[in-house]
Amino acid sequence: MNTSALHTRITPIRWAESALEILDQRRLPVQECYLRCVCADDVADAIRTLAVRGAPLIGITAAYGLALAATQVADRAALACVRELLAATRPTAVNLFWALERCWRRVAALPDDLAMPDTAAALLAEARAIHQEDAAACLAMAQAGAAVFPAGARVLTHCNTGALATGGIGTALGVIRAAHAAGRLSMVWVDETRPLLQGARLTAWELSGDGIPYQLITDNMAASAMAAGLVDLVIVGADRVTPPGDFANKVGTYGLAVLAQAHGIPFYVAAPWSTIDLSLIDGAQIPIEFRAGDEVCEIAGVRTAPLGAAAWNPAFDVTPGRYVTGVITERGIETLPLQHSLV
Amino acid sequence: MNTSALHTRITPIRWAESALEILDQRRLPVQECYLRCVCADDVADAIRTLAVRGAPLIGITAAYGLALAATQVADRAALACVRELLAATRPTAVNLFWALERCWRRVAALPDDLAMPDTAAALLAEARAIHQEDAAACLAMAQAGAAVFPAGARVLTHCNTGALATGGIGTALGVIRAAHAAGRLSMVWVDETRPLLQGARLTAWELSGDGIPYQLITDNMAASAMAAGLVDLVIVGADRVTPPGDFANKVGTYGLAVLAQAHGIPFYVAAPWSTIDLSLIDGAQIPIEFRAGDEVCEIAGVRTAPLGAAAWNPAFDVTPGRYVTGVITERGIETLPLQHSLV
Repeated sequence: MNTSALHTRITPIRWAESALEILDQRRLPVQECYLRCVCADDVADAIRTLAVRGAPLIGITAAYGLALAATQVADRAALACVRELLAATRPTAVNLFWALERCWRRVAALPDDLAMPDTAAALLAEARAIHQEDAAACLAMAQAGAAVFPAGARVLTHCNTGALATGGIGTALGVIRAAHAAGRLSMVWVDETRPLLQGARLTAWELSGDGIPYQLITDNMAASAMAAGLVDLVIVGADRVTPPGDFANKVGTYGLAVLAQAHGIPFYVAAPWSTIDLSLIDGAQIPIEFRAGDEVCEIAGVRTAPLGAAAWNPAFDVTPGRYVTGVITERGIETLPLQHSLV
Repeated sequence: MNTSALHTRITPIRWAESALEILDQRRLPVQECYLRCVCADDVADAIRTLAVRGAPLIGITAAYGLALAATQVADRAALACVRELLAATRPTAVNLFWALERCWRRVAALPDDLAMPDTAAALLAEARAIHQEDAAACLAMAQAGAAVFPAGARVLTHCNTGALATGGIGTALGVIRAAHAAGRLSMVWVDETRPLLQGARLTAWELSGDGIPYQLITDNMAASAMAAGLVDLVIVGADRVTPPGDFANKVGTYGLAVLAQAHGIPFYVAAPWSTIDLSLIDGAQIPIEFRAGDEVCEIAGVRTAPLGAAAWNPAFDVTPGRYVTGVITERGIETLPLQHSLV
């Protein structure tokens, strides 16, 4: 495979010395504009409101947010508060906590009396390392994962797992890019992914930009495509993977996994090791974020349900490992249960 | 059960002598306004564009449309053309063809030289009979179906199968109304039902009006609710039911049926006998309507996907009878395969 073809021109976040600039994903695909976050509060807001999202990318963003705060706060005690602020933005994706812990270990290893500007420089270096390592992990996942695609594969994916969700070409969408580059891809079925339409708005936008053939469907059409024999495999990302292979991902993933198994269709998860949480026993321990019902009662700001309608809005679901054909990481295709010794 | 409580104030269509007035369901729940259809072309447009929808209701509407045309055309040959026009509006729901055939049998039984005004009067009487019989069938289904609800049932439904889809209180939603009236209902899970949101816009509106507790979900959340043990049964309507119990219904139904079976949840279909097509061998013979991709790329007129996005838009799917716990009709709960002798 020509891996030099595997790149992206999309820059979802960029460090701008006194600020972190974030491509506002809420406005895509209609507008491409950057939010200028000048303090950690701005970064926390951007994560909480999904201006920036995607498990690996929110970890990277939080790391830069901590580095930004380090240029502004008086001491490490204040920085610890910022760390808590950033950690409290979203509960499900483990990459957020993983990145903040990694940054904090870097701080803890510095001399106690190091000046804050030097601490900030160390944190920026750590954020950049996390960012670059994630880009490299995307490439490694892409190469490992493309091998599971049969020739002429028609792959179904959910939510957005591309350049807008990571520091590189993506997790599941990175694998899809690699399969396309390797000539193994026929087309992509893109679930629109209600309520926030990350498939319709973001994945379709990334695929359009790369000239990769796709068909958009509403989430409830995936079963029809499977029953008609039009889906060869399913590949999704993850927000947290546990040792037995149970994993949290965007709501709708679990239903797809049950449907894939019922139709004999392989079901793969692509995620970097930063998404794997070996501290949990299984998926039942993953905290699931519930968001405001308005996201269900509205679409793109347009009210669709009657006023006063009650809605239920879990942002994620948990898929048991028994539905997972394989977990694709930067180390290759893992067998389940995931091994602690590999951490 | 106090069946006197089972009524609805919703009037989805009304005969107005020189016109058929149709509650424009595309504008609900924001606006309640009637389209005045003054000729069969108007009625055909209203069916084609989903101003009026729901398998039983489009049959009733077509019958009134034919009666309206009979007041305007010169002879039966012209009326036969109108019949073809109305039959060509939508392919999947069999009630449309069933109602038009029934009306045509009425015409065929009239003296050949009967004046057109008298023919029109006969057709109007037939349309009214079809309408009233459907209302009665709804009540009978409701009474038969409510018995399958366990006490305190949390029922999940899809699309709209209520007063906006029938000549009475509804098919599946009529059963839900009866279960509520009988004190057996805890709450309703309402799938929003993309792409056209008949659940969010229409079912939620009907339930709000009746004070029946519900929670709106996006279609891809149904699996989460099932996995969490929050769904006791699923009940849906149908657009065409075949002898082995295979049936067509709004896209998304098939996926729900697979999920219900995977979670051990009973799955019922409620439909009048006018929806049953004993002329087909099985569900593979049901023609499935594909609609314009714009319905997937837009929501309530707001573009959600990138310009140029390709989309796939089957309006219905087919669920095999092996997923069906029971078919509730006005005659009771049917066993599968459905018996020709009962026609």
